[in-house]
Amino acid sequence: MVTSPVVNTYPLSSYTFGTKEPKMEKDTSVADRLARMKVNYMKEGMRTSVEGILLVQEHNHPHILLLQIGNTFCKLPGGRLKPGENEIEGLKRKLSSKLAANSPSLQPDWQIGECVAIWWRPNFETIMYPYCPPHITKPKECKKLFMVHLSEREYFAVPKNLKLLAVPLFELYDNVQRYGPVISTIPQQLSRFHFNMIHS
Amino acid sequence: MVTSPVVNTYPLSSYTFGTKEPKMEKDTSVADRLARMKVNYMKEGMRTSVEGILLVQEHNHPHILLLQIGNTFCKLPGGRLKPGENEIEGLKRKLSSKLAANSPSLQPDWQIGECVAIWWRPNFETIMYPYCPPHITKPKECKKLFMVHLSEREYFAVPKNLKLLAVPLFELYDNVQRYGPVISTIPQQLSRFHFNMIHS
Repeated sequence: MVTSPVVNTYPLSSYTFGTKEPKMEKDTSVADRLARMKVNYMKEGMRTSVEGILLVQEHNHPHILLLQIGNTFCKLPGGRLKPGENEIEGLKRKLSSKLAANSPSLQPDWQIGECVAIWWRPNFETIMYPYCPPHITKPKECKKLFMVHLSEREYFAVPKNLKLLAVPLFELYDNVQRYGPVISTIPQQLSRFHFNMIHS
Repeated sequence: MVTSPVVNTYPLSSYTFGTKEPKMEKDTSVADRLARMKVNYMKEGMRTSVEGILLVQEHNHPHILLLQIGNTFCKLPGGRLKPGENEIEGLKRKLSSKLAANSPSLQPDWQIGECVAIWWRPNFETIMYPYCPPHITKPKECKKLFMVHLSEREYFAVPKNLKLLAVPLFELYDNVQRYGPVISTIPQQLSRFHFNMIHS
């Protein structure tokens, strides 16, 4: 039999959550965001962004950690790589910026695992695809999602303007209205993994 | 950088297609199918089925081989394992039954690769989920989708009552109405692969 890759998932209660200074969004509107993307593209070429899928378990079902901005919009922790930056190092830097305390001694042990998905932005528009569409030779962004294997205990410091939510896979599944196309299909992309639910 | 798993994809025109005797569906209605599933479950326990994702390229874009029954319904080649049967051997058996000539000398070289997705059927109903839903201790079916790495040249014999279609990823994506939840999310599940488009 083919063995599935294993992900150990620990109870949400085994993690500790604090707060830290706000991390404001760089843009206040979608139009601003796309305009800034265009300026950066002219300077640096295609944007590469990396995001982390951090899993915990509750009631024996996997939950994903999402950052909520305001009352509706949710995103995965992560962000844009610097030009030439290594994907794994860049994701660790972004995870620390979004979720770690400022003290170097309190950094979580970010174990970056499998690439789970790759999304492409063909134009300076919000729509992305899970493939580079035909006839697109200069995509504007490539976004990669990675599994992050959490240790049993960690301390997370959440920026005061954001909320960290543990959202069950069954809530994300088939819920593109609420979570968008990237996050709502994570359950299908994780289906090949075996979740080792650890109770402590 | 993390390297993506590579899939070589050859042009559709490098494969040869013939026909063979019809392979009729065992059931003539969804109700019959679910009733037969129930009878088999009583005898053999949870059903395990395996399906293959076979890729070709056209116009530099990956296409998936689907079997069309009648004018609308499409499915991946594959089927139910016998009790205790090995997944890989069972998938090879099913692929040969659906797509190979009867002569043993004309069997394609089925190279079964990565598990791409796992779907669960909690009840004797058509709905499946990409996880085993909470509180379901006795799922009725587990369906696994595997990448099948095709050689550069193959001969496929398609049962006369079926049509073999090469459907582009961009046609499957976000098209649950036409292809159903399992097939329409294959593009997202394949996004982590690097397609090495070979022109010959």
